[in-house]
Amino acid sequence: MPPSAIELSYDTSKTKTAATHLEGREDHDLVLRTFRVLLADLVQQYNGGHPGGAMGMAAIGVALWAYTMKYSPENPSWFNRDRFVLSNGHTCLFQYAFLHLTGYQHMTMDQLKTYHSSSWDSFCPGHPEIEHEGIEVTTGPLGQGIANAVGLAMATKHLAATYNKPKYEIVNNTTWCMTGDACLQEGVALEAISLAGHWKLNNLVLIFDNNNVTCDGSADVANTENIKAKMAASGWNVLEILDGSNDIEGIVAALNTAKASKDKPTFINCHTIIGIGSAVAGDAKAHGAAFGEEDVKSIHKKFGFESEERFNVPDKVYDFFQRVSLPRGRKLVSEWEELKAEYCEEYPDDGAELLSRISGDLPNNWEEFIPKSFPESATASRKSAGLVCNPLAQNIASFMVGTADLSPSVYMNWPGKVDFQSPDLRTTCGINGNYGGRYIHYGIREHAMAAIANGLATFNRGTIIPVTSSFFMFYLVSYAAPGVRMGALQELQVIHVATHDSIGTGEDGPTHQPIELASLYRAMPNLLYIRPCDSEETAGAFKVALQAKHNSTIISTSRQNLPQYKESKRDAVKYGAYVFREREDAEVTMIGTGAEMCFAVEAAEELEKFGIKVRIVSFPCQRLFELQSREYRRAILQSKRAVAVVVEAYAANGWERYANASISMKTFGKSLPGKEAYKYFGFNSVVIAEKVKLYLEDLKHEKIWKDEFIEL
Amino acid sequence: MPPSAIELSYDTSKTKTAATHLEGREDHDLVLRTFRVLLADLVQQYNGGHPGGAMGMAAIGVALWAYTMKYSPENPSWFNRDRFVLSNGHTCLFQYAFLHLTGYQHMTMDQLKTYHSSSWDSFCPGHPEIEHEGIEVTTGPLGQGIANAVGLAMATKHLAATYNKPKYEIVNNTTWCMTGDACLQEGVALEAISLAGHWKLNNLVLIFDNNNVTCDGSADVANTENIKAKMAASGWNVLEILDGSNDIEGIVAALNTAKASKDKPTFINCHTIIGIGSAVAGDAKAHGAAFGEEDVKSIHKKFGFESEERFNVPDKVYDFFQRVSLPRGRKLVSEWEELKAEYCEEYPDDGAELLSRISGDLPNNWEEFIPKSFPESATASRKSAGLVCNPLAQNIASFMVGTADLSPSVYMNWPGKVDFQSPDLRTTCGINGNYGGRYIHYGIREHAMAAIANGLATFNRGTIIPVTSSFFMFYLVSYAAPGVRMGALQELQVIHVATHDSIGTGEDGPTHQPIELASLYRAMPNLLYIRPCDSEETAGAFKVALQAKHNSTIISTSRQNLPQYKESKRDAVKYGAYVFREREDAEVTMIGTGAEMCFAVEAAEELEKFGIKVRIVSFPCQRLFELQSREYRRAILQSKRAVAVVVEAYAANGWERYANASISMKTFGKSLPGKEAYKYFGFNSVVIAEKVKLYLEDLKHEKIWKDEFIEL
Repeated sequence: MPPSAIELSYDTSKTKTAATHLEGREDHDLVLRTFRVLLADLVQQYNGGHPGGAMGMAAIGVALWAYTMKYSPENPSWFNRDRFVLSNGHTCLFQYAFLHLTGYQHMTMDQLKTYHSSSWDSFCPGHPEIEHEGIEVTTGPLGQGIANAVGLAMATKHLAATYNKPKYEIVNNTTWCMTGDACLQEGVALEAISLAGHWKLNNLVLIFDNNNVTCDGSADVANTENIKAKMAASGWNVLEILDGSNDIEGIVAALNTAKASKDKPTFINCHTIIGIGSAVAGDAKAHGAAFGEEDVKSIHKKFGFESEERFNVPDKVYDFFQRVSLPRGRKLVSEWEELKAEYCEEYPDDGAELLSRISGDLPNNWEEFIPKSFPESATASRKSAGLVCNPLAQNIASFMVGTADLSPSVYMNWPGKVDFQSPDLRTTCGINGNYGGRYIHYGIREHAMAAIANGLATFNRGTIIPVTSSFFMFYLVSYAAPGVRMGALQELQVIHVATHDSIGTGEDGPTHQPIELASLYRAMPNLLYIRPCDSEETAGAFKVALQAKHNSTIISTSRQNLPQYKESKRDAVKYGAYVFREREDAEVTMIGTGAEMCFAVEAAEELEKFGIKVRIVSFPCQRLFELQSREYRRAILQSKRAVAVVVEAYAANGWERYANASISMKTFGKSLPGKEAYKYFGFNSVVIAEKVKLYLEDLKHEKIWKDEFIEL
Repeated sequence: MPPSAIELSYDTSKTKTAATHLEGREDHDLVLRTFRVLLADLVQQYNGGHPGGAMGMAAIGVALWAYTMKYSPENPSWFNRDRFVLSNGHTCLFQYAFLHLTGYQHMTMDQLKTYHSSSWDSFCPGHPEIEHEGIEVTTGPLGQGIANAVGLAMATKHLAATYNKPKYEIVNNTTWCMTGDACLQEGVALEAISLAGHWKLNNLVLIFDNNNVTCDGSADVANTENIKAKMAASGWNVLEILDGSNDIEGIVAALNTAKASKDKPTFINCHTIIGIGSAVAGDAKAHGAAFGEEDVKSIHKKFGFESEERFNVPDKVYDFFQRVSLPRGRKLVSEWEELKAEYCEEYPDDGAELLSRISGDLPNNWEEFIPKSFPESATASRKSAGLVCNPLAQNIASFMVGTADLSPSVYMNWPGKVDFQSPDLRTTCGINGNYGGRYIHYGIREHAMAAIANGLATFNRGTIIPVTSSFFMFYLVSYAAPGVRMGALQELQVIHVATHDSIGTGEDGPTHQPIELASLYRAMPNLLYIRPCDSEETAGAFKVALQAKHNSTIISTSRQNLPQYKESKRDAVKYGAYVFREREDAEVTMIGTGAEMCFAVEAAEELEKFGIKVRIVSFPCQRLFELQSREYRRAILQSKRAVAVVVEAYAANGWERYANASISMKTFGKSLPGKEAYKYFGFNSVVIAEKVKLYLEDLKHEKIWKDEFIEL
């Protein structure tokens, strides 16, 4: 039970007591025994995997899948289903086994047996993957699942506030998240937990598989904090289950209590025994390895499965789950379909919008919201991003735009924007909002921002388009990188607006000036890293990002003002690179990108003064360029005829594919005003032209070979 | 005052009450006023910077520099000085101004005035930078300073436990860390806070500048948790100062109370007013911009500096600080030098070792501890790393080796290792340790691990060599990346042993298989990313890492067994790449690296069967190779004669500089047993040889150009 100092918030009329009689309770013992033996067998067959946590969590799974969660195995994508997130993703067999037992059709016993096999088309990879039915989100990197769950619970709150009407609770699902000791130590989870408490997400339940064991042994080798007091301090209800390995009725009661929470998320501290029933029960050895033949036999015996037969699931166990899961699921779905139909009749506009969002489509006229033209005066591309994104966000209900505490710097707020907040939040400075709001203050929590955005995106592909924003360097990128990666891995459409890119950031100095980060994102599969050079290309970048339904995108923008070019073309951004200025018999191609386009253009003009013929290519996105035909790429680069010199204030790594030489950064940056920082590092058209001229001479005299990439 | 539920731990005989009379208290008012006006002036002159936080914190600074901290302005590197960390690094003027006022010789008024100027040799960059006197650690990326401070406090605990003797407290300094609202929201800080409580670092004091303002406005827009209860739950003492902007005496009393803590770190919740005295006091507008001429005039007036003169510091104020700071500092240093001399006489062995460590040197015979040879049987390079590092760690007192909860996987523990733990920790499974221990269980906190390691390294360069370890993918790298970057930026010697690199990691699947991360680290300045191909090269990698006093190093190793090569050379690793097998008139150079060296070697043998002559290059480190002469590089690559094909199971980005084509990864990985994962993605000598053969034919027929980099 929670410490008395903690104030709980429940609607007691909705809670059930632990004494509730559960139908089927006479089967619990058999169900738990079967589950545990099955897990031991599955890990034993290929002698690898994670059995212990899943075995310890069995009773929690029974409480969830047999008694609590809303789902339909025959309709795994039902919109209003409860969402289940396994943040401790290494225990994936837990989820796979319950999907199998409750009747998810693809999850046959043969499929279950592919865990850790060499089968190329397994639905049972070593961590849950979103592309498989019944899996809501890919997990594995610890702690991120908790942040994803916060995003999923926000999505429900937001959609409910937007579309529910009296008598029509069209969206009212709950998000259930499992966590182990590890996730609760990770910073990303701690950030997200703080936000969930702040947002009063009473539809979120975090179930702690508290087995007090991590890889290094007892969890208290590295962790002795008071987790219950910490969760309470973060604004959560705290419940406790002392025998989490067996007390199904107690867990069901706690889950129901959690669902009745009025205005707090709920944390259930379930004490369990890792690898229960094995010779290494309660020990770190039960975590990540098979038990060995001998122990598996002993587990069989202990749990009353005397025969040598492996993977034995009595019919009674299937029946226990499926006599409930299948008909209940059908009923839930058909009642909801009926409700939806009535809703659409009574509220045709809202209904049409909701249906379109459920289908994942943008409104047909989305492109009209992008300005046709932009001011001709010099404009920082972070402002350009605002000019493009604000009207999109204002007019398209799917947009949920947030920032890690940099609203004044990132230009992502639009006139009349409403914050996503609990409506009863009272701030000292009077900022208010409600759950229908679409502007998100993430606080100074970049990693959680990216991971929560993934949760928003994964609620139902396309229903919500999350836009995150912060400085490129340490705010968005380095801190948020694991979250950005997980979005790309899951092919989630998330748009990250990264401002203050390159050394142009200025006085904030080398901690804030990215040098190496573009190399990371250009190498990251499924991720479009786009550096537009002006407003027009920024418009093109957003067009690409909105049409790329299976990519995450980073739109990388400048702090400082940039010239606007007549040559820039929004519709060419999608090719990754295009000719900015053609020149017959050119000797050099100057490649420019983003904020440093100006140096490429000016240096070209300087070079022409020396009688050197120069063409100019704008190169906003390497990954998009790689998707073009060889003919297109050859035409743009003309490598047989002209040598190419790229100008970018980042590490050159990766540009070698497109250029013979670079004007780039070899060190970290420096705290100087932006213009001075550029000058300090040689980004100056006269200096660049001089270097390129020398380079051409060295090439002529074979002091340098054309295929030796040179950082000038 | 702390909530009654919180149990405080102090040695009351050492605490002083708030009523203590402070010498010089009659000057406090003038000092505070002068400081605030000076800050407003400094930010105004170039119309940029962060004035508000520093102005609000003035009283805290006076309490620290005038009454509490042990330091000597004339001996800024004195070994036993207190360490001060400004985690909210954007308020750097706070620190610069106190360095000036207390008499640090380099920090002249002229220097102070270079803040935000275009001066290339300023000591006052936009965030504190370690290379300047009086600055202990570079901060800026929020939250990391707190983790650095934890590392600094650990270093003290460890050195004290190792070298202090009865009557000889040779190391007993305190670490003071300032934090704002932002740092306390960042995951890395939350991870480190939990560890500091666990380790009972009673020599660490975290002072919270609680002005309740962030960039987006009132901090409670995104944060409404109970920070005091949260800190207490994490094992900290909690003190509170209601008027933190003015109550110097109260703050001094709290700082003294904190110093008397028996077995907990202390958190002091200081309520302050951002930008106090300005027209925007208490508002987010006071955070990151100059106040404007008019407001600066009004600030002058309000604080009694009526004249138009800027940067006015009355002599009385200098006198207030320096009549104390200079003589006290001299006395502290001379007493300590005396103590050290006596110590060295009474304990000559310990004394010699300590002196050597203070000088930052390794023992002369360090190289002897590296095994001369290794088993010839196939060995996972993570095991090789253990074979090399364990005897070094066992024999060299400077090594402090830790892992983020992966002891069984990373092979970094040595026979008889003792854990760094509070000696009164009682774990449920009986693991014990003490502060003299040199093996660190960081828990599942990769980001804090990297940032704490930076703190250990920065206590005194070379005194402690921190080794961190975890999986390359999400454990070490992506989560820890910001910490690794900050280590590289500060040129700290930190060795990161990253295991389970590449898709050979296997069943754990794409969330655990790095694809793009090497691109990040190869592009990161000052960072050596080394992938050894066998034990011999692993020995070479450690040699490089130990001699690279101004670089951080990642040694990237395999989960799976790797063949051991007769051709591999430990002393060639320092060149970055070297010829593994020469071949006259070779048509192709196969480049191999790390765990995929075997594919390069085997494919070369397959190609020879087709009559194609192949030479082989081993390429453990791109950055080291770039440091070699052009002649050396040309000799290794022979690009005029042979085309080069690199084999690596990562994204190819960056290899274009050295190769014409690659066998590499174009997508994320897949959950399969390691060998099967390689096969699935075409890493198989027959397949590779076939592809290279076709590639050579395409080149001959000019279907492909040699300078078009091709991912085969």
